[in-house]
Amino acid sequence: MNSQQTATLESLRARLEAALAARLPPPDAYPPRLHQAMRYAADGGKRLRALLVYAAGEALGVPLDALDAAAVSVELIHAYSLVHDDLPAMDDDALRRGRPTVHVAYDEATAILVGDALQALAFEVLAQDTPGAAAPAQRLAMVAVLAQAAGSRGMVGGQMVDIESEGRTIALAELERLHAHKTGALILACVQLAACAADGLAKARRQALERHGRALGLGFQIQDDVLDVEGSTEQLGKTQGKDRAQAKSTYVSLLGLTDAKRRATELFREADAALADFGSSAARLHQLAALIRQRRS
Amino acid sequence: MNSQQTATLESLRARLEAALAARLPPPDAYPPRLHQAMRYAADGGKRLRALLVYAAGEALGVPLDALDAAAVSVELIHAYSLVHDDLPAMDDDALRRGRPTVHVAYDEATAILVGDALQALAFEVLAQDTPGAAAPAQRLAMVAVLAQAAGSRGMVGGQMVDIESEGRTIALAELERLHAHKTGALILACVQLAACAADGLAKARRQALERHGRALGLGFQIQDDVLDVEGSTEQLGKTQGKDRAQAKSTYVSLLGLTDAKRRATELFREADAALADFGSSAARLHQLAALIRQRRS
Repeated sequence: MNSQQTATLESLRARLEAALAARLPPPDAYPPRLHQAMRYAADGGKRLRALLVYAAGEALGVPLDALDAAAVSVELIHAYSLVHDDLPAMDDDALRRGRPTVHVAYDEATAILVGDALQALAFEVLAQDTPGAAAPAQRLAMVAVLAQAAGSRGMVGGQMVDIESEGRTIALAELERLHAHKTGALILACVQLAACAADGLAKARRQALERHGRALGLGFQIQDDVLDVEGSTEQLGKTQGKDRAQAKSTYVSLLGLTDAKRRATELFREADAALADFGSSAARLHQLAALIRQRRS
Repeated sequence: MNSQQTATLESLRARLEAALAARLPPPDAYPPRLHQAMRYAADGGKRLRALLVYAAGEALGVPLDALDAAAVSVELIHAYSLVHDDLPAMDDDALRRGRPTVHVAYDEATAILVGDALQALAFEVLAQDTPGAAAPAQRLAMVAVLAQAAGSRGMVGGQMVDIESEGRTIALAELERLHAHKTGALILACVQLAACAADGLAKARRQALERHGRALGLGFQIQDDVLDVEGSTEQLGKTQGKDRAQAKSTYVSLLGLTDAKRRATELFREADAALADFGSSAARLHQLAALIRQRRS
């Protein structure tokens, strides 16, 4: 990665932060405790999902203005899911993004409501008519994509199976299905949201992007399993070694560390290969995939 | 109410049940535990919010086909909010709609996820292109209405203030503001959703409907406070006397039983008066308001 490319991913991240801050209700809006906690929950993170929306949109020639709402909405859904996943009744974690989780910094009831409100806001953001926003029918298609990815046949469904699987060994195929839901669905949604904003998109191009999103999502998850073993709590900003503590099946526990890493490498190669027909328009997607491949947290 | 009218409200309720059942994922869909629990949570209830969508739509001449998604989506939001409100960290209730609450019948993690998934489904349903559905721009407007009503500046915000207010006396104006958010916003949204599906709706008619929705929503809430004192657990299908047990300020605790009932009567009169210009097209709305006024649970 050369420094010019890094600067550009950085500028997209800055763009996301500004778009997000503008769409979160002011911290003093009624009720202030809730709105402050929402900002706390939405703060931080690598914003990889938003960057994927922007990068996929760039590959399709979609203006950034038409992607802001989608980029913000996936980050809101991601943030809400972390708040709820960390609850005592779920993964019961005290550390996230290097800070106390919302139910620790505030309280459990507030954390439940923060998650609920962030999810509602994600859809509200897609429905807002801002200058340069995608057309109404395109934004309605985005609502459909995001709701499916976030719902019971997507992310929430994966989280359910994840909890059901605690303390027992599951087969690799079952683990892959779990993760295709729990993390994969929302990552896939990022490229699909960008596709919603592209006029007259050819089916083959959409499918190629989806192949990219699926491979990237699964590679990302395997990396997560590897980092849970190899990383430190400080580096990760969340509790290290949690999978083993919760007796969860992971790619590392099922394949071993070496083969898990090999599988991740394969998937990142597949993700790159899926973009072959996009040529240089996919430069940002390749760059983002490289950033993900090299992540340490 | 004559029997013909009753039959018609009944037929709308049956319509809602069919539309809802068709939009909930099958109980054996992956993951089955989640989808069964979603159906358990969405089952039962008086469906007053859905009926209000249909009745308001009828007053505006909107075909029922264009209202089904909105009617289903408000019931999904309402159902999710009950599941989360009943959680141990929130109101901690074991009984709802005459049955064990979701976290009792299943477990707490499942209840959190059921609520999350029902909320996502509400927006997915609005985005679906079914035969006779409202136009895409109208459905996008519905997404905006529902997301705002359900979110931090609506229902979830009201729930936050409700929890913050436990154990302390609040002023009547503050109580009214709380309820305008906690229950009022979603009831108001019902008439606004119907308005979204009406082509070329005059502003005055929209505003009249909104006055109706606001008065009805507040009257409904005062009734709730009265029923919490006067009803029985068996009749209500939820724990009676909860407000006092949680030391919550209510219309009854602030105004006394007699004046609370008087205020509710006034509000129902206001709700009826708001419909004056609609003439006979508002017959169903009047009929529904009468049903609400007479409810015992």
